[in-house]
Amino acid sequence: MNVSVAIVGAGVSGLKAAHTLLNHPKSPFAPNHIVVLEAQNRIGGRILTDRAQSKIGYSYDLGAAWFHDSLTNPVLQEAIRDDDTSLFDYRHHCYYDDKEARVYVSELEGAVDMVGLKVDKVLEDLHKYIELHFMDLLNIKDVSLKQIVAQFFEVHGHMVSDTQKDYAARTMPYLESWFGIPWDLVSGKYSMMDHQGRNLLNTKGYDFIVEKLARGIPNDRTLLGHQVVAIDRDNKNGPHKVSLLMKNGDRVYCNHLIVTVPQSVLQLPDSHPYGIAWSPPLPQNVKEALQSIHFGALGKVIFEFEDVWWDESEDRFDILPDSGAAPEVPLTALPPSFSYYAHVLNYSASHKSNNGSRGSSLGVLLQSPLTEYLEAHRKEAWTYFEPMLSKLVVEGKKVSAPINTITTDWTQNPYIRGSYSALHVDDDPSDLIIQLSGEFDGCGLHENYIRFAGEHTILDGAGCVHGAYASGLREAEWIIDSVAGSV
Amino acid sequence: MNVSVAIVGAGVSGLKAAHTLLNHPKSPFAPNHIVVLEAQNRIGGRILTDRAQSKIGYSYDLGAAWFHDSLTNPVLQEAIRDDDTSLFDYRHHCYYDDKEARVYVSELEGAVDMVGLKVDKVLEDLHKYIELHFMDLLNIKDVSLKQIVAQFFEVHGHMVSDTQKDYAARTMPYLESWFGIPWDLVSGKYSMMDHQGRNLLNTKGYDFIVEKLARGIPNDRTLLGHQVVAIDRDNKNGPHKVSLLMKNGDRVYCNHLIVTVPQSVLQLPDSHPYGIAWSPPLPQNVKEALQSIHFGALGKVIFEFEDVWWDESEDRFDILPDSGAAPEVPLTALPPSFSYYAHVLNYSASHKSNNGSRGSSLGVLLQSPLTEYLEAHRKEAWTYFEPMLSKLVVEGKKVSAPINTITTDWTQNPYIRGSYSALHVDDDPSDLIIQLSGEFDGCGLHENYIRFAGEHTILDGAGCVHGAYASGLREAEWIIDSVAGSV
Repeated sequence: MNVSVAIVGAGVSGLKAAHTLLNHPKSPFAPNHIVVLEAQNRIGGRILTDRAQSKIGYSYDLGAAWFHDSLTNPVLQEAIRDDDTSLFDYRHHCYYDDKEARVYVSELEGAVDMVGLKVDKVLEDLHKYIELHFMDLLNIKDVSLKQIVAQFFEVHGHMVSDTQKDYAARTMPYLESWFGIPWDLVSGKYSMMDHQGRNLLNTKGYDFIVEKLARGIPNDRTLLGHQVVAIDRDNKNGPHKVSLLMKNGDRVYCNHLIVTVPQSVLQLPDSHPYGIAWSPPLPQNVKEALQSIHFGALGKVIFEFEDVWWDESEDRFDILPDSGAAPEVPLTALPPSFSYYAHVLNYSASHKSNNGSRGSSLGVLLQSPLTEYLEAHRKEAWTYFEPMLSKLVVEGKKVSAPINTITTDWTQNPYIRGSYSALHVDDDPSDLIIQLSGEFDGCGLHENYIRFAGEHTILDGAGCVHGAYASGLREAEWIIDSVAGSV
Repeated sequence: MNVSVAIVGAGVSGLKAAHTLLNHPKSPFAPNHIVVLEAQNRIGGRILTDRAQSKIGYSYDLGAAWFHDSLTNPVLQEAIRDDDTSLFDYRHHCYYDDKEARVYVSELEGAVDMVGLKVDKVLEDLHKYIELHFMDLLNIKDVSLKQIVAQFFEVHGHMVSDTQKDYAARTMPYLESWFGIPWDLVSGKYSMMDHQGRNLLNTKGYDFIVEKLARGIPNDRTLLGHQVVAIDRDNKNGPHKVSLLMKNGDRVYCNHLIVTVPQSVLQLPDSHPYGIAWSPPLPQNVKEALQSIHFGALGKVIFEFEDVWWDESEDRFDILPDSGAAPEVPLTALPPSFSYYAHVLNYSASHKSNNGSRGSSLGVLLQSPLTEYLEAHRKEAWTYFEPMLSKLVVEGKKVSAPINTITTDWTQNPYIRGSYSALHVDDDPSDLIIQLSGEFDGCGLHENYIRFAGEHTILDGAGCVHGAYASGLREAEWIIDSVAGSV
């Protein structure tokens, strides 16, 4: 097949790129000029709204679920502007599920009085300390989130009580639920995020944006089950500059290529069965940049119950890990309960079922290494979480076993291999982005007709749907500009 | 009198300057080389710890009371480092009085459920919106805090309930308790402050730092009751470069001058009885800079009671103004209660009396124009606050009238004239600082031997004790450097 532009990957960045190439007023491309090659048998990538597994009529986003940075999020802003209620009605499908969460620990029956003990205020100081510490000097040595927390109490512990220290330190792993990696690996330097607005839960399902984009791309332009295994980036056999080899032996030739495979796939060796063999190989600086960043493993487990035995009026619950809890990795057996921080979502408050009623369901965000273990051993999820979730039981109610358990499988999916880009200690958040942009002298690929998009290729919205979306737009516009009048 | 260095003003900046000149290892100055000229009959300036007026054995800081920016505050850090318990014992004299405050309104009996209604989260968005709005463009037009709050709800009000809007909008004037001016005057552009750590209440009294500095300055080097009325900055009569005229007709001659009078005094016309007549007059750019910034009027009223009828375990209470409440200024009569935001301090939680027992006392921070009115009409304070403070009464207790009322008099004090520097709409926070620094070409005074210190001359710690302190150190070190070996 010969096309002008080939796009590898039908996640939100690839779909946004294809949609832009076909719908931008200045674009010279017709549908038969482009193709989207998708290895899996579905589009959407790490957007995955499950409408089948629930036994209580709920739908669950197993991948992206929130509009992050909701004050500036373009996906949200465009959904409000377009107001196409057949796709998404912001009046009914948005819910700020951010009521300050109640906090539980293994050693107490009820919730911890975080406000009364002013642990919330100690945490504010801790965040500010981390920010100031790493802002002070540009080349300051990175340490883990866990280490910088300990350092805070050493330097500023004079007037903090032991109780405050204990709860504050055990709260800080909450960032594991953002990054999907354990806090002793999290880069302290890049742990403090600046959010541009609250997180807004999309209660209809994030597949609305997949559907919205797909409507602007003729069906036959997206080839499912087409895994790209090799890319000849300087093709000499024929008029097209790039040659792509599929796993099934087919070839696609193109003059522009947008690679939107997950960072985890780019990071595989050329010889890996799910990796891409580049010819010539990727330049050394790109290879090095790929080693200077990691990939997280955020997962989810969802329990459905006969009835609600927790406080229905709460959006979320936080369950702190026991002090010093840190099983060896990788996990070879189910770790003890309370080994990791658990951020619990109360779907009974945020969601409605198909028939508009409330059901009884809780979700828990998982971080590595628990994600890998539970995604591979789904039946052990309740065993691990029962003692923790039992803390949430309200008076007069009794904890019941789930009637249904749904878990993600991102770490088991060979095309995804985890969640999204994550910064370990000493990682660099911008090196890979700069290398893949090819916008600076001496960096990236020599061939600027090979472009990269995806959540790992952008700083604003890194790891998020809206970041991926913006990166797809960026690359499509770059190609439109570069070929203006010459297709 | 002839000296090397004259310092006008014995507030914390002037005292720190004098202390540095006399104690810095590289300083060439002996006590008889310097003099501090203070218009009032006491030292300390806007630090004023009152130990006399209380009827329950408390001491009250009528001026500065908190260590702001407590993660980086040099006054606090040095107090911890020096650990001179005869002056200040941080183990016993520091109290984080920042337990999340309960919020009351005129129309409800109990406290507003700010967390349950997620008003706290709407407020987070509002703060972020203001920050992003003014960060977006360097030359963006300034509007008042009140206007930018209204604009937020216009732009991002889609998913905010009317109740959330009402409480969030009525909460935002809380910044009046920082700036001492009403929110329709507060510069929106500079309203969002970045604090380097929590606010830590000094429960012993801030005069410890006045005492600490005074110990390093021989008594006879500070002349009380010496108001400087005129400064000849280019003296031709004699060997000294500067001639200062006192109100009593005396003259002081010096080669270096540090002017630490409040910004409010610098802003007075030359002919004003409490102003300074400069000869030659201040340059036009300095005069203009003095007009591009304002002076706030933060005050305090303290009520002492027979017993405690509010919740002793709370640090503070916030009482929101009624919606649309905004009496004409200046106030010609006592405004209705609930006209202004009231931030209430529970001294019964933070303070102990001389004999170590707890007393019953509440403090309220006042903002302009209420400060001016109540400082001039002290007997009306309880009339205004009774309906508001009555909201705090707990079950089984009864509101009682105060047995003692103490008010500040900063706006009535002709040497102070308010509280500290404040930014109105369109004001510039750095112009005056740059002009007074004299460190840039074409700005400030021609005579660089005339220096300025005080809370209005510094960005880090502007308006705070530690800012004033750092500015005094800065100017003393500048003079020491400039005369090294040549006194």
